[in-house]
Amino acid sequence: MEKLNWIAVDWGTSHLRVWLMDDQSKVLQHLASDRGMSSLKPEEYEATLIEMVGDALPDQGSIPVICCGMAGSRQGWAEAPYGKAPCTPPSIDAATRVSTKVSRISVFILPGIKQLPAADVMRGEETQIAGFLAENSDFDGVICLPGTHCKWVHISAGEVVSFRTFMTGELFALICGSSVLRHSVDDEGWDAEAFDAAVSDAISRPAAIAGNLFSIRAESLLSGLSAAAARSRISGLLIGIELAAARPYWLGQDVVIVGESGIASAYEVGLIQQGAMARRVTAENMTLNGLRAAHAKMVEIAQ
Amino acid sequence: MEKLNWIAVDWGTSHLRVWLMDDQSKVLQHLASDRGMSSLKPEEYEATLIEMVGDALPDQGSIPVICCGMAGSRQGWAEAPYGKAPCTPPSIDAATRVSTKVSRISVFILPGIKQLPAADVMRGEETQIAGFLAENSDFDGVICLPGTHCKWVHISAGEVVSFRTFMTGELFALICGSSVLRHSVDDEGWDAEAFDAAVSDAISRPAAIAGNLFSIRAESLLSGLSAAAARSRISGLLIGIELAAARPYWLGQDVVIVGESGIASAYEVGLIQQGAMARRVTAENMTLNGLRAAHAKMVEIAQ
Repeated sequence: MEKLNWIAVDWGTSHLRVWLMDDQSKVLQHLASDRGMSSLKPEEYEATLIEMVGDALPDQGSIPVICCGMAGSRQGWAEAPYGKAPCTPPSIDAATRVSTKVSRISVFILPGIKQLPAADVMRGEETQIAGFLAENSDFDGVICLPGTHCKWVHISAGEVVSFRTFMTGELFALICGSSVLRHSVDDEGWDAEAFDAAVSDAISRPAAIAGNLFSIRAESLLSGLSAAAARSRISGLLIGIELAAARPYWLGQDVVIVGESGIASAYEVGLIQQGAMARRVTAENMTLNGLRAAHAKMVEIAQ
Repeated sequence: MEKLNWIAVDWGTSHLRVWLMDDQSKVLQHLASDRGMSSLKPEEYEATLIEMVGDALPDQGSIPVICCGMAGSRQGWAEAPYGKAPCTPPSIDAATRVSTKVSRISVFILPGIKQLPAADVMRGEETQIAGFLAENSDFDGVICLPGTHCKWVHISAGEVVSFRTFMTGELFALICGSSVLRHSVDDEGWDAEAFDAAVSDAISRPAAIAGNLFSIRAESLLSGLSAAAARSRISGLLIGIELAAARPYWLGQDVVIVGESGIASAYEVGLIQQGAMARRVTAENMTLNGLRAAHAKMVEIAQ
């Protein structure tokens, strides 16, 4: 293997992604695990990481490890206190240094961002934003980051000006996986027409959501609604009410969607249906670029 | 014990309630268990019931057992095909007779009601409605039945004219028990002011629900929002958007709430805040009265 120079880590609630980097910040190896924050105690983080990367560490010297995400939360590896919006995405100079038993790693955790009033928080997305801004320094507009907790972020002059989080992805997972609607959906299949109709319906009658959700169960019992249509309608209803509430963010704005392909595409379709302009970039690339920017700053400071 | 004459059963998704009745339909004994539909296969219903009531059965003759609820669903004990709205609440003459191995019981399951178009279904609530109408035969108005799946039912001339179901109770349980908000709530405590404010907020901005829910998490992290306030706000937001969507049901109507005390009280407070008139009756009494009415009809038919 080429020589390991530093390690990039995205440590979220349910996932752990690790990239071994050379001295040009090119990826030597990508590793992934499901050992996210929700399955770990604070004292288990170091061993979990060493288990994944220990063999790659050199015998001498110490390799920088730069982490973003929930590892920096109060229940995580070590608390990395939030930056406060409006602010630039926090970088390595605001990171929390974590002491480790193993001396061959030097661990830094990047902070998230908080907002008060209109209380809100992010951890991980600020690094994706930093990654996007590293290549689009003049961007003035809105970044939408769909996922478990979708964020809408207003960016101006390189700063996170304000943001708003919606629990849409988590509600979708709970409704499809644990509610009575679990009997009406399956994991596969997509019905674009059902999704479109549900987005429109939710935007015009947002309050009806809990009734419209139950209708899916009733139609599945009485009219043989397909599992694909049911799942697409749940998604459309939830994304639809979010788009209705997030209108001040996207209306007349340059919108960039940072997300995995399936969910990013659903948001894109919904936005286009509402007459908005949106383009997509890949979440993983943005995370990696954000961590690279933090590493570049570390090198710059050291010089 | 006084002499057992018949058995009333409310067999729901997560509960089983049984009342042993004398020949005046007075309750001799009340039994309850958590062996609801979701924990039973069709072939396990009979043994479950016999386990509870077997000792009380006489050596000779056959005791009528009248059931309502999810025992009559396709995944239940035996399917009791729905009546179709508009209709009177189905009674014993529409019940499904279930064959049993044990000859000392004669089991009948009351049907639910379906509605098409505006697809919707109920199982169990129709018997509570029958129980209410047994004592209020001239009622013309709306019955609200809060619970896992809250029903709003328009009643006229003794018939269920139309109804609409909201998944509000199920969403509340999932959000408090399984979402990220589980860290911000606990099972006890109530903050009436937080509930009231959330109801108003949800009615004026229903689309913001998924964002307002996440704000609770953020305020709990950043501003020390209490667990009682968090839980009351989740309840207020969900009941608030339901009240907004159900306005055509309650506006200017005589509303009767049939439910357990805690949740019925929350709906009553929300309705009164919106200037509606509402009164409450106890759900269990209505179930029992509905089953009594079915039994009385059985006796009448036999004569």
